Amino acid sequence: MPASPIRKLVPFAEDAKKRGTKVFHLNIGQPDIETPKVCLDAVKNCDVHILAYSHSAGNESYRKKLVQYYAKNNIHVTAEEIIVTTGGSEAILFGFMACLDAGDEVIIPEPFYANYNGFAVQADVKVVPISSSIETGFALPPIEDFEKAITPKTKAIVICNPNNPTGYLYSAAEMETLKEIVRKHNLFLFADEAYREFCYEGTHTSAMHLKGAEQHVVLMDTISKRYSACGGRIGAFITKNKEVFNAAMKFAQARLSPPYYAQVLGEAAVDLPDDYFDTTKAEYKLRRDTLVKSLNEIEGVFCPNPGGAFYVMAKLPIDDCDKFCQWLLEEFSYNGNTVMMAPATGFYATPGLGKDEVRLAYVLNATDIKEAANCLKEALRIYPGRQ
Amino acid sequence: MPASPIRKLVPFAEDAKKRGTKVFHLNIGQPDIETPKVCLDAVKNCDVHILAYSHSAGNESYRKKLVQYYAKNNIHVTAEEIIVTTGGSEAILFGFMACLDAGDEVIIPEPFYANYNGFAVQADVKVVPISSSIETGFALPPIEDFEKAITPKTKAIVICNPNNPTGYLYSAAEMETLKEIVRKHNLFLFADEAYREFCYEGTHTSAMHLKGAEQHVVLMDTISKRYSACGGRIGAFITKNKEVFNAAMKFAQARLSPPYYAQVLGEAAVDLPDDYFDTTKAEYKLRRDTLVKSLNEIEGVFCPNPGGAFYVMAKLPIDDCDKFCQWLLEEFSYNGNTVMMAPATGFYATPGLGKDEVRLAYVLNATDIKEAANCLKEALRIYPGRQ
Repeated sequence: MPASPIRKLVPFAEDAKKRGTKVFHLNIGQPDIETPKVCLDAVKNCDVHILAYSHSAGNESYRKKLVQYYAKNNIHVTAEEIIVTTGGSEAILFGFMACLDAGDEVIIPEPFYANYNGFAVQADVKVVPISSSIETGFALPPIEDFEKAITPKTKAIVICNPNNPTGYLYSAAEMETLKEIVRKHNLFLFADEAYREFCYEGTHTSAMHLKGAEQHVVLMDTISKRYSACGGRIGAFITKNKEVFNAAMKFAQARLSPPYYAQVLGEAAVDLPDDYFDTTKAEYKLRRDTLVKSLNEIEGVFCPNPGGAFYVMAKLPIDDCDKFCQWLLEEFSYNGNTVMMAPATGFYATPGLGKDEVRLAYVLNATDIKEAANCLKEALRIYPGRQ
Repeated sequence: MPASPIRKLVPFAEDAKKRGTKVFHLNIGQPDIETPKVCLDAVKNCDVHILAYSHSAGNESYRKKLVQYYAKNNIHVTAEEIIVTTGGSEAILFGFMACLDAGDEVIIPEPFYANYNGFAVQADVKVVPISSSIETGFALPPIEDFEKAITPKTKAIVICNPNNPTGYLYSAAEMETLKEIVRKHNLFLFADEAYREFCYEGTHTSAMHLKGAEQHVVLMDTISKRYSACGGRIGAFITKNKEVFNAAMKFAQARLSPPYYAQVLGEAAVDLPDDYFDTTKAEYKLRRDTLVKSLNEIEGVFCPNPGGAFYVMAKLPIDDCDKFCQWLLEEFSYNGNTVMMAPATGFYATPGLGKDEVRLAYVLNATDIKEAANCLKEALRIYPGRQ
């Protein structure tokens, strides 16, 4: 089981803070946006007397609300096609466990969300990466690369759209390409759409929009980023494939139920005004623009401008991103500040890739982002492993 | 992946209710005791503005509180030996995943909590049952049975104390026996102590009390039953074995964090007055006494008097408990009522065992329990498969 590349630096950050250094946390997708008050109030006003188990698929009232939420996004599902999960993490785990047998292979364009590795280990499944590259802004690799990677053991393709860690937003044409591949080879398409609302250029094409792929698609979702409710631990596993649904329900039953309170929170969130995301999106767009600009202004740094989510990947003039990120926390400070980032190596499955890349989450306000970028600039100037 | 034997009858119960039949739920360990007001109020008064991820091991403030809770139970651990989990379920899963490799074997006295099977499937581990019997009230099987079952692949013994589904409370002598076995064969002892406080005869011996077994013991715990907070989904994985702790932390990091709100609830629970459990225990004892007496008064029924938890196993004069439990929901009613119970077959790993046994959870008040027992008496009188 691999250690989380995002969380393994945490002890070094804790030590830095104990020494009095301020750490700009660009390492983790923990938004600083406030959770909507109406959502928090729903929990405050929750008048249960017995905090009982939910249905293993989640409260029916919440699933019915989710049907409305998805319909607004042109995703038409029923409450019986939804399993409320403990975060998006569990939705992914259920997908791996329900659809794949030990020894099966899943294709994932790399760099990819590092915890997919952990879920693959738990499901005893082999991750087969196909590489996307910072030069193309991490666009979907060409179809030939998929064809080359497919073996008789291949059972699924995993995509995250918009992407964590790259921020890349797949185009409608790229989604159609994926549809053709999964139909042709009879694969599952696992679609992690945690960042659905956070698209700054173009529109989001959900895997659930792909006509003719209904029996192939498993949607893995979460309210964590959407409503800044990461600590609630509520996500959703959604599929129109009845067999897959039933298999996933067995895992849902084994863990009894998802957490109650955050379902109440999520239920309230569906009634947020339609313009709720406008402000949030404008704020994230400002931050993205600030971060991408600031990074590209640093000598030797290259950062593509991604279309969605709240991450960017940047190429740095360094020897080794793991060393560099640890060094930032252990040995560096500038005006009492340092920066915490996620080393990109953890997002690649192919050994050696991503050694000069880092992921930055723009979950701080633009002022802090500028200051963090300044800090990084100074760090790159004096880092002993600069290339 | 096996379906949960406790939850698979749910659709039949839903149909019965739609027909207007009242269902006495003795099938699931969902207490009807109110969650302590001080715990619910802690959530209501929770003034977070951003519902952020917790530490992967759980909030430090909560872990420190848990240290106090365990100390009161003569269990001496530090906050660094605790991982807060998403329910007891996840604590068990972490234990299986962190300590066992694919193909390893775990010995579990049967009947046992059915979801252990699900976690074993997820960890690709083989469950080796050794049978305890209703005739002895489900006492620990003799040490020779363990010795016979141990192979080079055996890595752990799992016990639940007091036991779900049997209610059996292991004696200090039985716990010492287990200690000797795990020390002699260098095994892990996974101890599920979800019902620690619910002991009606004798005292509870925690696996954590076993001197000299510190490196072998993994405690799997939950606040679900203790504070009637099943829906919160908060448990704990505790071990003094550093290597095991670190391995479990990787799984904790992969799923990011446990749910936030129920940690707040659990933190408040530690400050409940010391006599909090007295009332609850008195209530459960009354129910147990009522249920055991009522069952043993039915002709052909045998029910031992268990020392703890809130379950009893009863032997019924029937052909097949799965058929019978389904028949109760599908075809039977008495004065507009029926009873839902858990077929015991799901708690045995040895095929054929438990076919004439059921588990009843005494999570209803004594009046309802009497009425449910009456209903069961009538059902057994007319059931076509009566033996």
